[in-house]
Amino acid sequence: MTEINVQTSTHSYTVKLGEKLRYDIRFLLPKNYHSIMIVTDSVVAKHYLEDVKKSFKANEVHTAIIPAGEQSKSIQQFYELQTKAIQFGLNRHSLIIALGGGVVGDLAGFVAATFMRGIDYIQVPTTILAHDSSVGGKVAINHELGKNLIGNFYPPRAVIYDIETLETLPAHEVRSGYAELVKEAFISDKDFLGELLQTDIQHVSNETLINHLQKGIQVKTDIVEADEREAGMRKYLNFGHTLAHALEAELGYGVMTHGEAVAVGMLFALQLSEKKYNQTLCKDKLIQWMKNNHYPTTLPKLSSDRLLNKMKSDKKVIHDNIPMILLSEIGQAVTIEFSYEELSKELEYFLGEVCQT
Amino acid sequence: MTEINVQTSTHSYTVKLGEKLRYDIRFLLPKNYHSIMIVTDSVVAKHYLEDVKKSFKANEVHTAIIPAGEQSKSIQQFYELQTKAIQFGLNRHSLIIALGGGVVGDLAGFVAATFMRGIDYIQVPTTILAHDSSVGGKVAINHELGKNLIGNFYPPRAVIYDIETLETLPAHEVRSGYAELVKEAFISDKDFLGELLQTDIQHVSNETLINHLQKGIQVKTDIVEADEREAGMRKYLNFGHTLAHALEAELGYGVMTHGEAVAVGMLFALQLSEKKYNQTLCKDKLIQWMKNNHYPTTLPKLSSDRLLNKMKSDKKVIHDNIPMILLSEIGQAVTIEFSYEELSKELEYFLGEVCQT
Repeated sequence: MTEINVQTSTHSYTVKLGEKLRYDIRFLLPKNYHSIMIVTDSVVAKHYLEDVKKSFKANEVHTAIIPAGEQSKSIQQFYELQTKAIQFGLNRHSLIIALGGGVVGDLAGFVAATFMRGIDYIQVPTTILAHDSSVGGKVAINHELGKNLIGNFYPPRAVIYDIETLETLPAHEVRSGYAELVKEAFISDKDFLGELLQTDIQHVSNETLINHLQKGIQVKTDIVEADEREAGMRKYLNFGHTLAHALEAELGYGVMTHGEAVAVGMLFALQLSEKKYNQTLCKDKLIQWMKNNHYPTTLPKLSSDRLLNKMKSDKKVIHDNIPMILLSEIGQAVTIEFSYEELSKELEYFLGEVCQT
Repeated sequence: MTEINVQTSTHSYTVKLGEKLRYDIRFLLPKNYHSIMIVTDSVVAKHYLEDVKKSFKANEVHTAIIPAGEQSKSIQQFYELQTKAIQFGLNRHSLIIALGGGVVGDLAGFVAATFMRGIDYIQVPTTILAHDSSVGGKVAINHELGKNLIGNFYPPRAVIYDIETLETLPAHEVRSGYAELVKEAFISDKDFLGELLQTDIQHVSNETLINHLQKGIQVKTDIVEADEREAGMRKYLNFGHTLAHALEAELGYGVMTHGEAVAVGMLFALQLSEKKYNQTLCKDKLIQWMKNNHYPTTLPKLSSDRLLNKMKSDKKVIHDNIPMILLSEIGQAVTIEFSYEELSKELEYFLGEVCQT
């Protein structure tokens, strides 16, 4: 079992990576709990819920199954889980287990953060993408007017990552997760980046996958330890995300996975970076890797104005300028503000390259 | 202006008490803000909203007015305020001002705690009762199945208490607030208690009121500084509240004010305390003061079983026993667990004394 320790402003917790951990969750908890509610979605439940329940006594564990998909990060689903927690008799000494991907983790984490003003929860991620969201304590639900607008910074008490649960992931989910790993490499570590850009992501051994996840989580950990509440460098984790969020919203959620949109967003950020710093920053290598691994590298025709307006309404925007995370070199992220006009010109050029009518 | 400093786990803030402060709020803020949303209710808005807006520029301040009353602490109202915050263009560098009593403070505080994962807010209490809820950072909304079940610990950035806004309070709201002051005295300070139990609460000067509020807030501050997240001694602030919450729920919210219910709850806690510690603990003096100040000292016929079941479902209950905050002496609170049967006997005796058919 591989372990990474994460220090937060309120407590520290451990990320445990290994095989077959889902059968032993009860013994991997940091303490005993009065009662437990497992929150999972309909897809994950079919594969792994019974495995996870095995280590618990029947009378101490309750289950809430939500519909799979982003639409479950709603105020209605949030309230319904609060109702279940009350009806199951959870109290301040209870635990919530988030068994699933980012949607389950964000939603169940926010329920835990607010139920009776905050109870413990642990993350049991079942996607590669969730290596990112399960560490760092950002929990949230969506508002109809924007993603993740209602939430808390509320770190888990443990992250228990059973690598075997990733074997059932469909190919586009593997792509989604690996794009975030590539992002972590881009902002921190040239060697890690080189390793990832040589990987055939659909055919990695568990050993290699654990190694990649460990490195990615370590990057994330180092950053959130230094800046838990995103006052400064935590923003670097948004490399590729400003355009990605706009793309997801504009195309409609689910058309492209989050990580696939991030991959395209990184291409745009690299275009800006290469121009600004007048050097090659692996944009071509990234495109090649994306093609090798069947990432979308072309887009339907999109309006740059509509995308830019979505980028402006992102919650990190302070003034009228649009801040973009760029790289001054591989491993060195910086925030650069662009005027609407300047970014518009760059985006139109970019869309001309990647869009196909 | 009287000031009390409060240290929290994340930051410190100041409680400012004085006259006419509502006109100067902009100048009393700890820093400048990008934009501001004032949340207030329909009753307070009529009296004080324009006064508060005067110190701000018209284009930096937005207003959200909620219906007055406990029913506004709902998930629907919570979501509606989030919508307004988004539509007004608030971002992470904005401020929410909670102008009103406990309902406004709890709701607006929880909106601030969760909007974009937490933005700054200040409390501008307009009731005596809110001296209690505005300090200490407990924010919450109600669930249909129980009060304050969804919330956060999230301290404000300042509390600005304009004593003149208390002049418009109706008599039962004055009673409600003074009962919490008496509670703070009971658990901390015999002299303060003696002073309060000689007060004709409908005829206090602003100077005396500031003095009483200052002392009450200091008691609260000392306790929440030692135990912000209610792991131990913060529970002592619930002296009188276990029965009070059950009474409010059983009678229907609004039949009796919160403080009036707490006064009755303190009588019960004193009955238990006097018996357990075999000494006089001012129960008779409290009844006399309540009568002098027109507190309800009789109750309609109530079922002790129904009350006890409500007391059991309180979120502080860990096991099957019911923990009660008692006094071993004036100023010395303790938690004592009672079995259902034992408490039932005591409660029936108490109801026999105070109930009138």
